[in-house]
Amino acid sequence: MQEMGYIFIQVFILLAASRVLGGAFERMKMPALVGEILAGVLFINIIIFYPSIGTMIHFYPDAFLNDDTHFLHVMGEVGVIFLLFMVGLETKFSDLMKVGRTALYVAILGIVVPLAGGFAVMYAYEPGNMNLALLVGTAMFAMSTGIAIEVLRNMNAMSSKEARIIIGAAVIDDILCLSLLAVISGVVTPDTNATNIILNTIIVCVFLIISFGFITYIKRFADRRRQKILEKYKCADIHGDFSVGCEVSTFHEMKPRPAKLSILGLAILVCLGMAALSTTIGLAGIIGSFLAGMLFAEFKDTMPCEENFNTVTYFMLPFFFIYVGMMVRFDDFTVGLLPLLAVLIIVAVLTKFVSGYYGSKMGKLSTDSSVLVGVSMIPRGEVGIIVASIGLTIGVFNNQMFTTIMLMTLATSIVAPPLISWAYKRMYTHTHAEPQCDHDH
Amino acid sequence: MQEMGYIFIQVFILLAASRVLGGAFERMKMPALVGEILAGVLFINIIIFYPSIGTMIHFYPDAFLNDDTHFLHVMGEVGVIFLLFMVGLETKFSDLMKVGRTALYVAILGIVVPLAGGFAVMYAYEPGNMNLALLVGTAMFAMSTGIAIEVLRNMNAMSSKEARIIIGAAVIDDILCLSLLAVISGVVTPDTNATNIILNTIIVCVFLIISFGFITYIKRFADRRRQKILEKYKCADIHGDFSVGCEVSTFHEMKPRPAKLSILGLAILVCLGMAALSTTIGLAGIIGSFLAGMLFAEFKDTMPCEENFNTVTYFMLPFFFIYVGMMVRFDDFTVGLLPLLAVLIIVAVLTKFVSGYYGSKMGKLSTDSSVLVGVSMIPRGEVGIIVASIGLTIGVFNNQMFTTIMLMTLATSIVAPPLISWAYKRMYTHTHAEPQCDHDH
Repeated sequence: MQEMGYIFIQVFILLAASRVLGGAFERMKMPALVGEILAGVLFINIIIFYPSIGTMIHFYPDAFLNDDTHFLHVMGEVGVIFLLFMVGLETKFSDLMKVGRTALYVAILGIVVPLAGGFAVMYAYEPGNMNLALLVGTAMFAMSTGIAIEVLRNMNAMSSKEARIIIGAAVIDDILCLSLLAVISGVVTPDTNATNIILNTIIVCVFLIISFGFITYIKRFADRRRQKILEKYKCADIHGDFSVGCEVSTFHEMKPRPAKLSILGLAILVCLGMAALSTTIGLAGIIGSFLAGMLFAEFKDTMPCEENFNTVTYFMLPFFFIYVGMMVRFDDFTVGLLPLLAVLIIVAVLTKFVSGYYGSKMGKLSTDSSVLVGVSMIPRGEVGIIVASIGLTIGVFNNQMFTTIMLMTLATSIVAPPLISWAYKRMYTHTHAEPQCDHDH
Repeated sequence: MQEMGYIFIQVFILLAASRVLGGAFERMKMPALVGEILAGVLFINIIIFYPSIGTMIHFYPDAFLNDDTHFLHVMGEVGVIFLLFMVGLETKFSDLMKVGRTALYVAILGIVVPLAGGFAVMYAYEPGNMNLALLVGTAMFAMSTGIAIEVLRNMNAMSSKEARIIIGAAVIDDILCLSLLAVISGVVTPDTNATNIILNTIIVCVFLIISFGFITYIKRFADRRRQKILEKYKCADIHGDFSVGCEVSTFHEMKPRPAKLSILGLAILVCLGMAALSTTIGLAGIIGSFLAGMLFAEFKDTMPCEENFNTVTYFMLPFFFIYVGMMVRFDDFTVGLLPLLAVLIIVAVLTKFVSGYYGSKMGKLSTDSSVLVGVSMIPRGEVGIIVASIGLTIGVFNNQMFTTIMLMTLATSIVAPPLISWAYKRMYTHTHAEPQCDHDH
């Protein structure tokens, strides 16, 4: 058998395990990504504890960990790049402007409180280690837009006022997190100094200002173009037409390939290009792809790439969670870490709930609504995992600390979804005669 | 910058170059894959001749060539696995039964004549080297279903009688090629002997018989199930409804994820699983994924994965052509190989044209139609490239021979499409008053 045969077997085992476990978690009303991460955790740890299985399928954990060009690493990184593009795609610039003060309160409290909480716990645990405490705090505040939105969508609750606040807060949170992440990863890099921090902050600001300026300019351009097409074709609901899936080719010449796939090709290129650009100036690749997504959000009507990009992301994203799971090696975890893990999980859950609850209260929401917003803020996910990976890469986290942070992230993702359904049903029962959302019984 | 940043830059450069060159070739009415291969050829050769560029983006050709887990290799292999799944998906078992004798004549002549031609040329060039001659002959007969179908689709000629013959021949050709490929790659492996050849042939036959038997069984099962649903819902054109893109969830419970994506996930798993299975018993992975595609072809109505699988293939396939291009290193090519290359190209073009022409004539087609079928058989592609890769892997081809075969394949893909449009227009003008297909002027 050629070497490639073993790789097909590896990919098959990993994807099959992630689908099975992901599906099982979905049935338990939990996000599939938890199952996908667990598939990676199981795979690597089974091979670490029974190396003969690894030899049988030609998989060697240490060679894998030290190889940056390993397909699981690259496909995982491309997967998360694509995910952030999708998040950006759901983030219309205009929506950012429309989100109320409530979302802003929730977002800002949701960053400050967990950052302070995580920092305090870690600084108490290892006094004097500023970088470690700062990075744990960062991993603590980074909310998972994906998980929150996915859970709400599964409950058909996307049109509720609370959902809009949560999404608004998630959007603000996301941008602040991504910016802060760059600054903090600048602060904690070993060769850092004040000039570097200031320079990094300036670079981040300039990059973001240029990007947002460009997006605004592009938006105006797109609006004018849309107006022209509307006048030319005297077609009132061109928006509706396009969003249903009408090919762009209507307004262009016939193309050899389906126009929608050409748009997908362009979107993938811009996404990768922006990721490459942002890594070149020292930011994380996900910031670039998030901005690329926001850029394409302004062209949803003329260049609809959402459906196809979603399909490709559906294929690539599991590799990210699998890869992430494969970083959690239990040969590094000791029982002595359990108290720290327990405290971190409790702090992670409480700080986010409290900030979501009081943020909503400050926005004059009812207690029921505030509870829903509060629990919806609990799940951490992609960004927390990315922070943990960065911590491991730059050497601030050792393998034990990395595993602890990963387990904390996993725990919040497992705890939150049932709480969100409970809070939603509770709120719904208080406002309506009987709950509509009966699939949660 | 982290190492991953350089990988984003590499992927961006490669994808951008392949889109630009692929698009340029499409504009010239040639298949995009030629441009995509050229992007790979340019990338690797620029870096080989200017190593400083490779250092700049952290790309090292020799490390890449010797790494089976390199992402470009794996993504390319997964891409071609997916392509053959798509080809299988277009191959309904019932269509295989319906294709006329003409298609069979064209297919069989189209294998025997080029195999004999390639073998004769190569055996004359290097007398006594059976394996080399056999493998060159194999690379010579392997028609590109993808290219022929793509060119015909671009000309809106898919409903013509000639197109049906070409597709029918392509289907037979494909299966015979894939089976023969396994046998021949068994024959030419260094440690081969008569027992191995017989064993390999038996394995191939058993595998194919079991697979086809299974597909037939599944087909009957699917038909019965469809009948039951039809009776239950008293809905006459359920076929039409489904094929438009109606979610399967209509007949199932609500699922958290869109049903279509779940089907995609299942299709990817079955595709990879069959590829892994066929590599395990010594066949090429593409045979397994082709059979998986044929299996899913029987469920197109209840499990429509074609559109989404096509989207994922659109993303992954360029990596195969890029990877293939990156195998063509011009530091191995010498001017002394030019005569052999020229003879191989002429033999490749003539043998396929002659067999297509006379095969059609034997099926009592007009001269115009026979010419169209003949030129449509010319393009080689995926399978020829796979044969060349196998030849390189098992050591029958050296780098020079590999590059020669690659250039031969490239040449047929470049020569054929203009000839096909010419022959189609010629046939069309002789039968109709004026050509409809005016975008070829």
